[in-house]
Amino acid sequence: MARKQFRDLADPETARRAIRSLDLDPEPETVPLREARGRVLAERIDADLDVPGFDRASVDGYALKAADTFGADEADPAELRCIGEVHAGAEPTVEVGTGECAEISTGAVLPPGADAVVMVERTDRATDESSETILVKTSLAPGDRVMFAGADIAAGERALGPGATITPREIGLLSAIGVDAVPVRGRPTVGIVSTGDELVRPGGSLDSAAGEIYDVNSYTTAAAVEDAGGEARLYPHAGDDYDAMEATLREAADECDLVLSSGSTSASAVDVIYRVVEETGELLLHGVAVKPGKPMLIGRLGGSAYVGLPGYPVSALTIFRAFVAPAIRRAAGVPEPETATVEGRMAHRERYSEGRLRYMPVGLVTDGDGGTLVYPVDKGSGATTSLVEADGIVSVAPDVEYLDVGERVEVQLFSPDVRPPTVFGAGEDDPALSRLLDHVDRPRYLAIGSRQGRRRLRDGVTDVAVVTGESLPDGTELGRWSREWGLVVPSGNPDEIDGLADLVDTDVRFVNRTTDSGLRSTLEAALDDLASERDVDRRGLTDAIDGFDLAVRAHESPARKVRVGDADVGLGLRATADALGMGFVHCGTERVSVVADETRADKDGVERLAAAIDGNESIFESLAGYRR
Amino acid sequence: MARKQFRDLADPETARRAIRSLDLDPEPETVPLREARGRVLAERIDADLDVPGFDRASVDGYALKAADTFGADEADPAELRCIGEVHAGAEPTVEVGTGECAEISTGAVLPPGADAVVMVERTDRATDESSETILVKTSLAPGDRVMFAGADIAAGERALGPGATITPREIGLLSAIGVDAVPVRGRPTVGIVSTGDELVRPGGSLDSAAGEIYDVNSYTTAAAVEDAGGEARLYPHAGDDYDAMEATLREAADECDLVLSSGSTSASAVDVIYRVVEETGELLLHGVAVKPGKPMLIGRLGGSAYVGLPGYPVSALTIFRAFVAPAIRRAAGVPEPETATVEGRMAHRERYSEGRLRYMPVGLVTDGDGGTLVYPVDKGSGATTSLVEADGIVSVAPDVEYLDVGERVEVQLFSPDVRPPTVFGAGEDDPALSRLLDHVDRPRYLAIGSRQGRRRLRDGVTDVAVVTGESLPDGTELGRWSREWGLVVPSGNPDEIDGLADLVDTDVRFVNRTTDSGLRSTLEAALDDLASERDVDRRGLTDAIDGFDLAVRAHESPARKVRVGDADVGLGLRATADALGMGFVHCGTERVSVVADETRADKDGVERLAAAIDGNESIFESLAGYRR
Repeated sequence: MARKQFRDLADPETARRAIRSLDLDPEPETVPLREARGRVLAERIDADLDVPGFDRASVDGYALKAADTFGADEADPAELRCIGEVHAGAEPTVEVGTGECAEISTGAVLPPGADAVVMVERTDRATDESSETILVKTSLAPGDRVMFAGADIAAGERALGPGATITPREIGLLSAIGVDAVPVRGRPTVGIVSTGDELVRPGGSLDSAAGEIYDVNSYTTAAAVEDAGGEARLYPHAGDDYDAMEATLREAADECDLVLSSGSTSASAVDVIYRVVEETGELLLHGVAVKPGKPMLIGRLGGSAYVGLPGYPVSALTIFRAFVAPAIRRAAGVPEPETATVEGRMAHRERYSEGRLRYMPVGLVTDGDGGTLVYPVDKGSGATTSLVEADGIVSVAPDVEYLDVGERVEVQLFSPDVRPPTVFGAGEDDPALSRLLDHVDRPRYLAIGSRQGRRRLRDGVTDVAVVTGESLPDGTELGRWSREWGLVVPSGNPDEIDGLADLVDTDVRFVNRTTDSGLRSTLEAALDDLASERDVDRRGLTDAIDGFDLAVRAHESPARKVRVGDADVGLGLRATADALGMGFVHCGTERVSVVADETRADKDGVERLAAAIDGNESIFESLAGYRR
Repeated sequence: MARKQFRDLADPETARRAIRSLDLDPEPETVPLREARGRVLAERIDADLDVPGFDRASVDGYALKAADTFGADEADPAELRCIGEVHAGAEPTVEVGTGECAEISTGAVLPPGADAVVMVERTDRATDESSETILVKTSLAPGDRVMFAGADIAAGERALGPGATITPREIGLLSAIGVDAVPVRGRPTVGIVSTGDELVRPGGSLDSAAGEIYDVNSYTTAAAVEDAGGEARLYPHAGDDYDAMEATLREAADECDLVLSSGSTSASAVDVIYRVVEETGELLLHGVAVKPGKPMLIGRLGGSAYVGLPGYPVSALTIFRAFVAPAIRRAAGVPEPETATVEGRMAHRERYSEGRLRYMPVGLVTDGDGGTLVYPVDKGSGATTSLVEADGIVSVAPDVEYLDVGERVEVQLFSPDVRPPTVFGAGEDDPALSRLLDHVDRPRYLAIGSRQGRRRLRDGVTDVAVVTGESLPDGTELGRWSREWGLVVPSGNPDEIDGLADLVDTDVRFVNRTTDSGLRSTLEAALDDLASERDVDRRGLTDAIDGFDLAVRAHESPARKVRVGDADVGLGLRATADALGMGFVHCGTERVSVVADETRADKDGVERLAAAIDGNESIFESLAGYRR
């Protein structure tokens, strides 16, 4: 189909202007005070009554005429006759005359005739208990210990202005002036339309063979919309029914102030969006010169604003934060949050030369001197784990070719309460470690294998490495354990695998781990032993293993391939075979060590991790083949 | 009744320990992913599927065997036969053989036989449009542009740990692994019991003559509980029915993890609380050595934790923040917020010598150099307006006798997004000004009269003063207007008041404004004129005015007293008489000027205020007797 052409990518400022030109302002509404927390006041509120509504005693004591206490002191108290009492919440039934007083509680109405209150601590009752004579041991001025009607806020005075965010403090003032229905800015309604043919809502069942994946952007964007002060509305996923998708887009445009979709990988779905936007509204902009997020649409869909986000979750959320969230906040009247930034040094050199502004997701780690190191988190835009492995964004200008190691950069945190992890580790994927981390507050661990763990520790990026084998990297060993490794086979071991030799000698399909894995190294060492027994080189053996090069990344992955019948035998741990109810052929025991960078061994999280290794024997006992 | 005796006030740390000793932990619960934003994960979540669940094409292009492209480049492309296509969300129907390729979309399943994908940009179709021959102009390695199954996160890997706060990013990862029911920490249920006889819920009707006031603490505390991650439950107000109050306390103890009440001024109500706590639980502590907030109870009420907060709203909220909120956050698993503090200099000397830790509420103002000035906000603990006039708390140690002007202090902000007002003014209470402030973002204005406005401007505390009269304080006049003043009388002017002379000469009851008011000064100047006409001194006239010393603070207050029949004539503005539908006797016109501190005239908010005066003619037109 013919599409409006946008030759050049818009620069980010143009995109912001385009979004600002859209109207997504909702109508104001009125909410009960009880539900007003976090809302933004739509108009000025003046008090329409006095607070307090009467002249109020500020202390427990006696209401009296100040003139009656003239010159009184400890030595020469004024003697007044107590004629009654006044309680809070009750209309006074007495009138105080000259030489008289009335007992009064804090908060009670000052009775007629009285013009001051003396604290009970500055009085005595005359010695006779039944006496009604009160001795006032201080001089008072009119108004002492009295809060006059309207002294807090008076009828007609300005209480709160439009734009005030309603916190408990504003709720207090509104309560005081009796306002229980609060005019607030509306929350823009943001419709979220999911457009990929391949997407399934979380909780639904997934056909991976058909390339289905869970829809990440819908719930993520909905939560981000709510963070920004909007009201998210999720529209049912139309799958590959393009008529239904068109109907959904039109319905969302009718019902919402803003419609968001996230880039479909399906060309037909994109065509539907283009067509509906051009038929009912206008496409203002297509493509922004930022990375990630080039494929971004801005326009109008019927009477509603429309933004098309990129499809990859990290890109979608980054673009949402940079361009869409400010527009939602503006429409909701929510003030821009105090930008939370930290400065840090690049943990390693990062090259870049695409000539577009780059919003680079980064993680933070505190080094041994308390400084902040910054490292890029880039697992490819398709990865959802980078969502939680990053702490913020570094904006890299289009003309920057690289960021050098040690270079100072400013990180815009995802939110003001983001803090670096207490401990940052990388290395072997190990089920005991995974459970130990539950006992550490805010850890971050990348299960990228022993080899990568060693490298990152050496490079000073991480606090700890988790590695297999006897040879440890430089640093402080926080703890160690051993785990049984071998071959995971279907329950009952139908191929009667007996050991590694069977991989070489029989016709079974094997699944290996990737070369970064410590377990893979352990396997290779064992194969070296077998090769020298047989007096061949290792290559001679591995070439004979069907699937030796079929390597998967995580510790359960080979076993799971075996379980679904994609292979006959997989490299793995006894603990894994046990957990998955599969058979296991023992090959050996390997050591797993947790090693900390010496300069960071006294970081709080590192110490916590060491304590967790020492203090959770039950974790090792619960895992088959583990021993500490 | 006999009460457990607590001779000394507990120190704050003892009070914190007492609260920590109480159990207010709720049960964990499971919530839908869509509602999990802001909750805290109760347990570790491991992936139980691979993400992606299949080997996935990362780009639009052609799936092929990498070996077929060996040595290919622009000059010498590899020629492959395209045998079909694979779309995202569809199971491949082709198998790629040697010398073949298949068109593939981003996100689609890599078809059997293929081990890499070439981007469409690095290919050409052979010149003949209908040809199925694809020219691949680059060499590929196996795995290029493919995201392998489980590469993002694999089945069995740790996804998130217990204690993680669920933000849009965690929602993204949980979506990706298909988790739609999330185990989260429960929110502690906090029952709020309102105990004062004199309290009326906002929205209810108030009998001020009987000393009733609106219940400020219930809604305020409820909102603060929710800010801290608890679930607030408001119990019906029992008024002065002590049996009902006891029943409510017992019910709340049954239903909630924590029960809060706020100090009643009614001794009988306090007795009921003491008795129920001692009968069903235990009182651990009574009274903490802090100001404000000495009267604080900590104990157990049945199986529930119990804290009695002070009665005054500022005290109650301060004590809640300092002692109760951390306990609720701990029970909810919510991390302590990053403490938001700013450093500033004291704007004036503040004396203090009560020997207790003082949580001093303070306001902030930015001075001309961008520095932060700090001034105490202390209108008496009974004032609710101080809730919104303060920005944070300065902790003053018990042994501090005074804070000197210019002394550096650290302010703990009420929340991290608190910022100083853009403009801080004080002075005349004026309805035009009140409306002009609606056009300024985050202003703060204290309507404390021209005299106090002049003083604060001179002391360098405020940015602007709003004053009446021709004589201006030093500074830059941002704008001015005039307003008609005179005598507000009942509609129809039943006493046939004609001017100021009638106040002196006839038997009417007058209501004045307080001496800080600029309008009062204007009245006094006019009375001076009348006195010289009559050749008497002013005192001779004012003594003859019934009610000259009956002075109220706010601009509408005299008129409102007249309206309810408490007086016959009040000092006021034509605009006020007009707004309240009352009669008005013109006495004169006075000038109102807005004057800025010279060093702060270019502060953003000050400029905005000047622009608001210039740009809102309609405000002056809408107010009777106003002219700019």
